[in-house]
Amino acid sequence: MIHALILHTFTTVGTRAGKIQKRESRRKEVTKPLDDEALDVLFRKARSYNGWRGEPVSEDVLKAVWDLAKMGPTSANCSPVRIVYVVSHEAKERLKPCLLNENIEKTLSAPATAVIGHDLAFYDRLPDLFPHTDARAWFVGDAPLIEATAFRNGSLQGAYFMLAARALGLDCGPISGFDNGRVDAEFFPDSKIKSNFLCNIGYGDPASVFARSPRMDFAEACRIE
Amino acid sequence: MIHALILHTFTTVGTRAGKIQKRESRRKEVTKPLDDEALDVLFRKARSYNGWRGEPVSEDVLKAVWDLAKMGPTSANCSPVRIVYVVSHEAKERLKPCLLNENIEKTLSAPATAVIGHDLAFYDRLPDLFPHTDARAWFVGDAPLIEATAFRNGSLQGAYFMLAARALGLDCGPISGFDNGRVDAEFFPDSKIKSNFLCNIGYGDPASVFARSPRMDFAEACRIE
Repeated sequence: MIHALILHTFTTVGTRAGKIQKRESRRKEVTKPLDDEALDVLFRKARSYNGWRGEPVSEDVLKAVWDLAKMGPTSANCSPVRIVYVVSHEAKERLKPCLLNENIEKTLSAPATAVIGHDLAFYDRLPDLFPHTDARAWFVGDAPLIEATAFRNGSLQGAYFMLAARALGLDCGPISGFDNGRVDAEFFPDSKIKSNFLCNIGYGDPASVFARSPRMDFAEACRIE
Repeated sequence: MIHALILHTFTTVGTRAGKIQKRESRRKEVTKPLDDEALDVLFRKARSYNGWRGEPVSEDVLKAVWDLAKMGPTSANCSPVRIVYVVSHEAKERLKPCLLNENIEKTLSAPATAVIGHDLAFYDRLPDLFPHTDARAWFVGDAPLIEATAFRNGSLQGAYFMLAARALGLDCGPISGFDNGRVDAEFFPDSKIKSNFLCNIGYGDPASVFARSPRMDFAEACRIE
């Protein structure tokens, strides 16, 4: 499918605005690595939570998470992720029958459950999101490319979402064990949005964390050539 | 496919070790949000780079990126991502014919190009990675579940990789425009590993950055119910 991917990179192509910015940009210093405390919050001491302290999560915080997560890179800036924050009792009751039994209690008790989906009609937004060229035309009629692009980039944005939430002091509890079709019918009707995964967010109860599972060593998962 | 997902959550199920840890865990303070400088490095001022300053990226830094990225959550700790860091001139020459023309120069000049792939045989590692139960059996013979799980979680890990690189002071230039089949044949032969995307890493030249493309507002991409 290389023909369909001709300009399909994560970075924008040259534009007049880009060239102006290039001339104006100044040589930056090498970026300083984050301190140990920040690396712990994001990666090393962060855990998946199964229970929550009482504090609610404000609408302002939910919006602040998005305002960070949306900045992460997607190919051709396609930004396919769509999120429903399930917060109210009524909405949680609609989510409940979609969940596996062992995921019900931690989801109903979470201050918010983000339904992370991706829009298979994402390419209709490309004239706004990637205005330099007719990127929409790369996708129209190419279902495999549409599905792969939405799933890949929607998942990347789901990860940006979780790390943005952690960066703002929230804890996450992502879940794959649910009935995708039923969630789609309940929360994304009359659209081409498909659910990807759920993520409970809130302020986690450390007593709800299980033992850390092992991770793969560098030599098992990576090599240098 | 809900039957196949019965225990397929991102969090581990209860184990003796988990219960011991639960008893020993102490009530933590609310996590402090990261400071503005860190949020800028990760999200707000981070950009995709098309050119690089001269500094190489040491093997120690490449390993440190993995040691952060590997900590991010995957469903049932399945950890399907596999990464080849293409660094040497010889390896770059093997990558070159897989690239679209406009991606060649920035890739050949990058200190390292990470080929981000996912292993469709990931479930053979589950007895080690998720030892509490026979999670391998959930996947054997279910190709759609295998492919979706590998693609979703491999993409999540690809995002963790990019944010981990940024957290350590590196810059990223992710690329989707390449011949996946040819990369697979060249870098993942005799395996079930499939390439997902490429990511140039190094210390970015700010003159190589194009104008920021627009992002979707909260109300366009999200709603609260």
